[in-house]
Amino acid sequence: MAGSQNKKQIIDTDIHERATYKDLLPYLDNPWKRYITDSDWVQEKHLPYPILGADGLDRADAKPPSGGPAGNSLSFMQEQLLDDIGHEAGILTGALDPSPSSMHGWYEMAVALATAYNDWQIENWLDKDERIYGSVHVAAQDPQAAVREIERVGPHPKMVQVLLPIDDRPWGDPYYHPIFEAAERHDLTIGMHHNEPPSYYGQFPRYFVEWHSVMPNTHMVQINSMVFNGVFEKYPNLKLVMIEAGFTYAPALMKKMDQQYKALRHEVPWVKRLPSRIIQEHVRFTTQPVDELSQKEFMQFIELMGSEDMVCFSTDYPHWDYDSPFQALPALGDDLERKIFRENARAAYPKLPQAAGMVNQ
Amino acid sequence: MAGSQNKKQIIDTDIHERATYKDLLPYLDNPWKRYITDSDWVQEKHLPYPILGADGLDRADAKPPSGGPAGNSLSFMQEQLLDDIGHEAGILTGALDPSPSSMHGWYEMAVALATAYNDWQIENWLDKDERIYGSVHVAAQDPQAAVREIERVGPHPKMVQVLLPIDDRPWGDPYYHPIFEAAERHDLTIGMHHNEPPSYYGQFPRYFVEWHSVMPNTHMVQINSMVFNGVFEKYPNLKLVMIEAGFTYAPALMKKMDQQYKALRHEVPWVKRLPSRIIQEHVRFTTQPVDELSQKEFMQFIELMGSEDMVCFSTDYPHWDYDSPFQALPALGDDLERKIFRENARAAYPKLPQAAGMVNQ
Repeated sequence: MAGSQNKKQIIDTDIHERATYKDLLPYLDNPWKRYITDSDWVQEKHLPYPILGADGLDRADAKPPSGGPAGNSLSFMQEQLLDDIGHEAGILTGALDPSPSSMHGWYEMAVALATAYNDWQIENWLDKDERIYGSVHVAAQDPQAAVREIERVGPHPKMVQVLLPIDDRPWGDPYYHPIFEAAERHDLTIGMHHNEPPSYYGQFPRYFVEWHSVMPNTHMVQINSMVFNGVFEKYPNLKLVMIEAGFTYAPALMKKMDQQYKALRHEVPWVKRLPSRIIQEHVRFTTQPVDELSQKEFMQFIELMGSEDMVCFSTDYPHWDYDSPFQALPALGDDLERKIFRENARAAYPKLPQAAGMVNQ
Repeated sequence: MAGSQNKKQIIDTDIHERATYKDLLPYLDNPWKRYITDSDWVQEKHLPYPILGADGLDRADAKPPSGGPAGNSLSFMQEQLLDDIGHEAGILTGALDPSPSSMHGWYEMAVALATAYNDWQIENWLDKDERIYGSVHVAAQDPQAAVREIERVGPHPKMVQVLLPIDDRPWGDPYYHPIFEAAERHDLTIGMHHNEPPSYYGQFPRYFVEWHSVMPNTHMVQINSMVFNGVFEKYPNLKLVMIEAGFTYAPALMKKMDQQYKALRHEVPWVKRLPSRIIQEHVRFTTQPVDELSQKEFMQFIELMGSEDMVCFSTDYPHWDYDSPFQALPALGDDLERKIFRENARAAYPKLPQAAGMVNQ
């Protein structure tokens, strides 16, 4: 993207910074440190796909000239993304490996990694560029440790969300409620990034394209679970941002949940309003990987959601399927573009600067 | 509905007739028969919900005066449904219990039950009312037995589809291909009725309303799996009807699959066309339980699907969430109503009468 003539003032809701294991060593105590230095421990892998050639999940041009994997260098991210596009702000969502947000099993190590990752993130990113905001990584395999970590780093002024790992228990489960309570208390939004959930009966489908095409299903299950288990009645200020599954699945989910609620609400008397109203108020969706939609189609999906306030732009930099803010969306008009590129994110993340001027893009 | 003044000539793509275990005894050999008569064997239950009061899953007024469960009496179904509405045709999809289509484990018993069920269905329903068409039940736990059963009863002129059980393997898997081959050879459509798949990691969510709201997810997985595994290239005349999950989830799925296919088709070189084109040609969706949609919203979903030929009306009689053809849909105009109420089903099921006059409803 170097050499773009125009700038676009955006709040980017999905940027993947990346630590190496070596980066995390200064933030780890023994024995965890020694598992890496002496035993070459690496996180278990989940995705069974031989994907996408030499650059794996990353854009071919995103590898920093100074070495290291894509997303590992602040200065290169500043040059290639933030300065080039004109970001007002960007929210870091971490990388797959090493990431406590996608780690199963061995929860003590996951807790240690989350702590180290958050400290590394604060010191090397949040405190180094005023545009960059962060996500609290937690090891939800130990929910009490997750709450402690939210208490520890959640008050940092640049931490805006808790990135909650996806596991085999849907998020409405009471198991997660202490985490929601702590997030709400610290004005932190709950973020769901797609991570690596299998799509069917705990299994991965045969092809990456197949898995990636039904990624929204896991998001649908979590929204559905949180709404019907009364999470948003219990934590009325909680916000939820669904990251990296687009937004086109929302209308069908909202219509179906409303219809079922009207017939079956005796089962869930703690749910006091139509699910679509709860979703409109509490849930936001990031665009990437955005479907190819005409202006008319885009507006039909927005109209069917019943609100222009629910979609937030994201690039997913530096991944292979990065969306450019100059190309990803059809022309939507100044009002809606302002909402999608900036204002909806501001409302979704209370700790982002709220008083930014309405600068023209 | 007794006393309806108007008639509506429809092809109803989801009617639940119901056998009791006693009904099936004349069609079972020993030892299977004795497991029922001497051991009071009943099919394992899957749904963990205490649902819906005294009438369970059925409409309170659908219990036949002559006794037996709802859906067990042809004469009462004729009176309450077919004569009252004005059905041109109706397709039977069976009931949950006893049904080989929702039975796990013990596949020899499932095979015996499928055979008995199909014989009972032919003798008591298909051969007794010219409006009634049937589904071949198969025990897909034994795919070779399923193929044999398709060979045995598939040629019956009133059998129009193979109702394939949902299990823990998505339907694009080569495991199912011999069944598709046999279905295509006999001009039988593959029908997916929602049955009882859990929604997440092989688990049921806490509430029926929660489970029922993400029912479309299982349908999305199967369509996605069949398309990317090349089933419709391999069996170019195969039709698939997705029963009892509505249709509003289709646009988002089609857009997402197209977008992913454009980026990743090197993984699936056997898929020769855009997924949305394959779905438009091969897949149909039944309306019930239809979301509450305004005329504008209904048309937006149809437009986003890119075709008026994909939605087929269904009542789901005699279940609790029955949709009346007089009330379920907004006004859609004569052309689209004719398609949804009759013509789309005719195209989805080659063995239905194809030459019916274009009678006004």
